[in-house]
Amino acid sequence: MNIAAISTPSGIGGIAVVRVSGPSAISICDKVYRPFKAGNTLASRKSHTLTYGQIIDPESDEVIDEVVASVFRAPHSFTGEDVVEISCHGSLYIQQRILDVILSVEGIRLAEPGEFTRRAFRSGKMDLSQAEAVADLIAATTAASHRLAMSQMKGSISRKLDGLRLQLLNMTSLLELELDFSEEDVEFADRSQLLSLAHQIDYEVTRLASTFSAGQAIKNGIPVAIIGAPNVGKSTLLNQLLKDDRAIVSPIQGTTRDLIEDTITLGGYLFRFIDTAGIRNTSDQIEAMGIERSLRAAERAHIIILLSEPKVPFIDFEPRPDQKVIRIINKSDLAASHDETKSLMSDDSPIIHLSALTGEGVAVLEQHLIELARPVESQGDIVLTNRRHYEALNTAHDYLLRVSDGLTQQLPGDLVAEDLRAVIDSLNSILGQSITSQDTLNNIFKNFCIGK
Amino acid sequence: MNIAAISTPSGIGGIAVVRVSGPSAISICDKVYRPFKAGNTLASRKSHTLTYGQIIDPESDEVIDEVVASVFRAPHSFTGEDVVEISCHGSLYIQQRILDVILSVEGIRLAEPGEFTRRAFRSGKMDLSQAEAVADLIAATTAASHRLAMSQMKGSISRKLDGLRLQLLNMTSLLELELDFSEEDVEFADRSQLLSLAHQIDYEVTRLASTFSAGQAIKNGIPVAIIGAPNVGKSTLLNQLLKDDRAIVSPIQGTTRDLIEDTITLGGYLFRFIDTAGIRNTSDQIEAMGIERSLRAAERAHIIILLSEPKVPFIDFEPRPDQKVIRIINKSDLAASHDETKSLMSDDSPIIHLSALTGEGVAVLEQHLIELARPVESQGDIVLTNRRHYEALNTAHDYLLRVSDGLTQQLPGDLVAEDLRAVIDSLNSILGQSITSQDTLNNIFKNFCIGK
Repeated sequence: MNIAAISTPSGIGGIAVVRVSGPSAISICDKVYRPFKAGNTLASRKSHTLTYGQIIDPESDEVIDEVVASVFRAPHSFTGEDVVEISCHGSLYIQQRILDVILSVEGIRLAEPGEFTRRAFRSGKMDLSQAEAVADLIAATTAASHRLAMSQMKGSISRKLDGLRLQLLNMTSLLELELDFSEEDVEFADRSQLLSLAHQIDYEVTRLASTFSAGQAIKNGIPVAIIGAPNVGKSTLLNQLLKDDRAIVSPIQGTTRDLIEDTITLGGYLFRFIDTAGIRNTSDQIEAMGIERSLRAAERAHIIILLSEPKVPFIDFEPRPDQKVIRIINKSDLAASHDETKSLMSDDSPIIHLSALTGEGVAVLEQHLIELARPVESQGDIVLTNRRHYEALNTAHDYLLRVSDGLTQQLPGDLVAEDLRAVIDSLNSILGQSITSQDTLNNIFKNFCIGK
Repeated sequence: MNIAAISTPSGIGGIAVVRVSGPSAISICDKVYRPFKAGNTLASRKSHTLTYGQIIDPESDEVIDEVVASVFRAPHSFTGEDVVEISCHGSLYIQQRILDVILSVEGIRLAEPGEFTRRAFRSGKMDLSQAEAVADLIAATTAASHRLAMSQMKGSISRKLDGLRLQLLNMTSLLELELDFSEEDVEFADRSQLLSLAHQIDYEVTRLASTFSAGQAIKNGIPVAIIGAPNVGKSTLLNQLLKDDRAIVSPIQGTTRDLIEDTITLGGYLFRFIDTAGIRNTSDQIEAMGIERSLRAAERAHIIILLSEPKVPFIDFEPRPDQKVIRIINKSDLAASHDETKSLMSDDSPIIHLSALTGEGVAVLEQHLIELARPVESQGDIVLTNRRHYEALNTAHDYLLRVSDGLTQQLPGDLVAEDLRAVIDSLNSILGQSITSQDTLNNIFKNFCIGK
């Protein structure tokens, strides 16, 4: 079946592109396309060429638009099928009419969300992890999330998994050697060697899975909690940071209210602020419960900003080992002297003095946030951003534990081999190689935009 | 100077297009473009070809996106200059980054609104009336406004003006013949023949100018007033019509609130409803003034819907000769019988019976509206939509009157010829041939969208 969709963002613009893909894409477009130069039908054009012409309504012979048509012949196209891209004037009316007349031809229907990419996957132009990265790439709004998506689209996960699979196949062949000679009750595969290999693979798998938290942070915003007593200037600081937002992209319809109000982009990283209002030292039991709740919310944060003001001690907060803490003394414009304030501190960790009101010193804080964000990204060569991949790696990890157990308990080789195959299947599912269920694929592609 | 802009609608989509035009467009793009196949630089590619490659940040060597680049070589491009169109993934981040790295090359700047089209005009690819039609084409939201813009973009106004100019040149040469022999005091040009020619041209000019009202109606909505006493169901009828709106396009950010609330598209025509609330027959003087005001508002309407209900007579309304009137009796669901109602009417014009509440009969009204709209469009072969053109024609008309006066008053031929040249100048200004002021051009193109 052939498919068509408007591939450019919805709305009015200088130009828009209607994309058509499928075995008869070229002959279908020729039914509504009239080249300016007689004989220049799309069927007559070589791959990767552009031709001027008109889109006509074959029923009324009305000229809908003057267009440029791109022809890509299989397999040298995005989908791997024949593809025609019609570049037209970007009026909503024209875009819709062109799509309508194309869909009025027999043998073609509107593309589902992500269907062009799905066909690229089906025809082997990319594996599933790369196809998923296309959606991430389009949704990326910061330099960091863009870098991750681009690296995945270019196959970084695929290559990493290829390496792991090679080790797993190695292990399997050692086990098979044992099975081949099982009659003779000889143990060719050194079980301790196999066990060490299983541990090594599991280490890689869990290490990769552990990057998911960082990947989520980069994709959705690195969670930051500003903790401080009321009146130390939490809101003022947040507003000051938001005002300084160097986000390249403007807020878009559909982005959540949160994203607009409480995130900032600094140095190519998105930071998401967690609401932790109302923390103070108190002996009032009910108020203490509220504080407890706020502190629990702060547990989700990767970065904690402890905010105080001159002569007010910091709130007691015990960060997890993986949480980074920045100590800030606000109202530097009012402070008698930095030294005097410093003497109030319980430890010697560096402290940033700033004035949330005047903005003085805020740039230092921003630089600090960017520096804390960098290791989040470079934690490993590959950073996982996709929950499906994360879950597949967790499954692989579970089966690897069974493999280790089986080897330790001297289970027969064929039982161990079965678990080993489950590990390989889990890794393959990330690349889409062992996915046979259409539902799973539907689920993966349903969040794509139409036209991609 | 070379220029670049994002040409597709702003927002996130499957793909987006960054357009670059100018004498060095190709070499500039090659600075940030790395072809997948070594040696496939854009400079090495023929016109009208597509090439796969990557856009890189030349500073950091970072890959920003994998793209398809279209090369159009002068003069065979939209602008008539060398053009490169980069088709990239439709993320806002990618679109902006690609534009940024291109603009970071020396010798290129961001395109102004409409600048690509302006260059097409400058290089003689189209005249000014055609360039202006491009903006209309992109803004067109109905079949009818699209047809007008398409016809103008294809040069219908240009051809019509060419015909008029031929007649004017004819007339000028007759006058010049007279001037050549002025010494001998012979009148070669028959003044009555010249006068008749002037009248003929003026007839054509005023006829073309008179289509402007229809053009405005088609472009902005054919103004319709529903006039009736309160409680006869004006709002219910309007809501019923709005509910049945067969508009192809969805409301867009930036379209006026009016457009969303009080216009409907029927049969490819946009109808705009004028608010004429609160009309009733009354002896109260103050209320009568309000009614007077509403009736004055209705004078702007091309179509008047006189709305009444059974046993209530229609409001007195004297339409202008060019106003079409539709008489409707609402609440047909409550009417005892049509015949009984009809007997209340003062004349025999056809009356539509409908129920605004149930929607019964509304389709008949819609069909009627479409039939009244059709002659608006086909009033002439060409329908003027642009106020600048309208004003230029009015100026031409004024000078033609002076020509006629001069001929009648037996003024010397060189004085008449001067006015004749002013007529030709006015017509030329529509095509952009006599426009030397950059301000005028700036003004024309400032309302274009960026990237076109």
